[in-house]
Amino acid sequence: MPLCCSLVEIAKLRNEFPVTRTHAYLNAGTDGPLPVASVRAAIAELEREAEHGRAQRHFERRGELGSELRCAYASILGSPVEHIALTSCTSEGIAQVIAGLRLGAGDEIVTSDEEHPGLLGALAAARELHGVSIRMAALGEVAGAVGPATRLVACSHVGWMSGSLAPAELAQCDVPVLLDGAQGVGAVPVDVTALGCDAYAGAGQKWLCGPDGTGMLHTTPELRERLAVDRRGYGNQAHADAGLDAGLHADARRFDSMALSAETLACALASMRVLAEAGWPAVYERSRGLAALLAERLRECGREVAPRGDTTLVSFSSPDPAAERAHLAEQGVILRNIPGRPWLRASVGAWNDEGDLERLLGALMV
Amino acid sequence: MPLCCSLVEIAKLRNEFPVTRTHAYLNAGTDGPLPVASVRAAIAELEREAEHGRAQRHFERRGELGSELRCAYASILGSPVEHIALTSCTSEGIAQVIAGLRLGAGDEIVTSDEEHPGLLGALAAARELHGVSIRMAALGEVAGAVGPATRLVACSHVGWMSGSLAPAELAQCDVPVLLDGAQGVGAVPVDVTALGCDAYAGAGQKWLCGPDGTGMLHTTPELRERLAVDRRGYGNQAHADAGLDAGLHADARRFDSMALSAETLACALASMRVLAEAGWPAVYERSRGLAALLAERLRECGREVAPRGDTTLVSFSSPDPAAERAHLAEQGVILRNIPGRPWLRASVGAWNDEGDLERLLGALMV
Repeated sequence: MPLCCSLVEIAKLRNEFPVTRTHAYLNAGTDGPLPVASVRAAIAELEREAEHGRAQRHFERRGELGSELRCAYASILGSPVEHIALTSCTSEGIAQVIAGLRLGAGDEIVTSDEEHPGLLGALAAARELHGVSIRMAALGEVAGAVGPATRLVACSHVGWMSGSLAPAELAQCDVPVLLDGAQGVGAVPVDVTALGCDAYAGAGQKWLCGPDGTGMLHTTPELRERLAVDRRGYGNQAHADAGLDAGLHADARRFDSMALSAETLACALASMRVLAEAGWPAVYERSRGLAALLAERLRECGREVAPRGDTTLVSFSSPDPAAERAHLAEQGVILRNIPGRPWLRASVGAWNDEGDLERLLGALMV
Repeated sequence: MPLCCSLVEIAKLRNEFPVTRTHAYLNAGTDGPLPVASVRAAIAELEREAEHGRAQRHFERRGELGSELRCAYASILGSPVEHIALTSCTSEGIAQVIAGLRLGAGDEIVTSDEEHPGLLGALAAARELHGVSIRMAALGEVAGAVGPATRLVACSHVGWMSGSLAPAELAQCDVPVLLDGAQGVGAVPVDVTALGCDAYAGAGQKWLCGPDGTGMLHTTPELRERLAVDRRGYGNQAHADAGLDAGLHADARRFDSMALSAETLACALASMRVLAEAGWPAVYERSRGLAALLAERLRECGREVAPRGDTTLVSFSSPDPAAERAHLAEQGVILRNIPGRPWLRASVGAWNDEGDLERLLGALMV
């Protein structure tokens, strides 16, 4: 399903996403479009729970859905399933790694100057609570900023502000690397081995089109063993009925969010299936192709496009981002502005088409 | 709606809960029955998201739903709304308090010998990671077990194994008290001031009949100031766009779970409304009256009833709890067994009736 693929295939994919019927939906970097199949999957679980109650069979069902979703997330990250925890969001996974390392005074974390509050919050906690130093560099320069006190590099895989990419040199870093994959997984091909990262935290509700409250954390066994786990719900423990000696699962389930519902898991899983059915290589190719096309067309319209990589985000100059965002929303064109930068950000997915891009271009304030 | 209330009122309440049509559902101590109105509320949010996307208006809607749910939880705990965090489960709130205190070697936590893995997991982490001592006493004796090294009492408000109650003397304790309210809130009247606790962690999916993945944490301002917060998502931060200097909300939102979805919040809120509509005093009175009746009838049937308070749980001896649980389930009677104890546990709510109790009694293995 490259850019030039048949109209029938694109129509079929767009038909999965009701929002595309009425909106030029360019906001997956916040929250992806929700497929109708995912809504139906959640409804089926909710109705089952209401009709049959929530007892032994319900928890078995939750477990099965969790296993399937974990496999789907593992597959898209190129990771063994044992390395994948099911989280409620990217920030949760990030905090588990940063807090779990138990760094202190004299230790340093290297990060970039274009990180999201979800990562910065965990860094602020490490600084305030434990005296950890935070060193900031441009995203492209983070590998070079590693020094003798650096204990972790924590930065975006794909920067949320404008879609720039983490440098490939991070794979050669000799300190642990945590990538914030909120704008990575589902948007661009991810191979955690090739990236050479020790942890990769991603979102389920953005480029994977799942419900709010979903995400994943990949960790290598080596890093996992070093991370303290101070939150231990029933599902994190190896022998939960063994009291204080319950221990933790050896695999990444120790980091699972404590209470993901069957309806949430089923919804996320259905979204993964819609995208898998479209075909991942095609989804990536189409999304990035459309994004590159949009960047080109915006430049032709006299807008400056912020530095970006071969990703699905296109941030561009706006005379008044908040006002223009509202102006566009009134015309059914959905995107966001970036706090502190004079930019609007369009998120382009395989569910978009050239008509969506033209609709944005035609609705810009002049 | 006391036990003797009109059949019309009981029929109206039971009609809200589809599972009561076919099952004697006695499992709210695990997960409550889900009202049809709650399913509908979740569906409405999911369909809105799919149709209209998830952008600015969506996040405003999530915020409104969160505020309403926070108010509903505050009301039922007798707490100012500023003291209530929205969590994903009881265990999450418990872990935030126990880990947040940052205790170490030489410090002690007093707990009871009938705690749930969700509390024991947090205690095990404090012991393993920080060398905190854990002192166990019978639930009725925890106040007397407080010694000079005790920094926290952490125990059940209502014990999950058999429905016993925490001792009233805890209100006079001069160390912080954290109550595990998983079997408390919604089952028995809760007034956090009268209980004299510094923190109260409760579940949304049990006696409040909400979806899995909901709960709340009450904290006093004094305790809150002492608790370290190492997980800081967007919604926990006071000025989330201020980078490393974002700070935390002064109120309990600093402890909010990071990513509760609109559908989850709306579902939980609808359940609170169903119960409020029935009337809380009546719900409490009816639930506990039916539970006391069941305990009496079980004794008449030759079953031993485990020590319990005036609560909604009734645990009773079984020749083979796992087998009898399965046997009962085959006949549509839903309850659970308790690991490590020779008991079955029936959870009795206002949605039950005497017919449910008779159905259980008639289906017991002989």
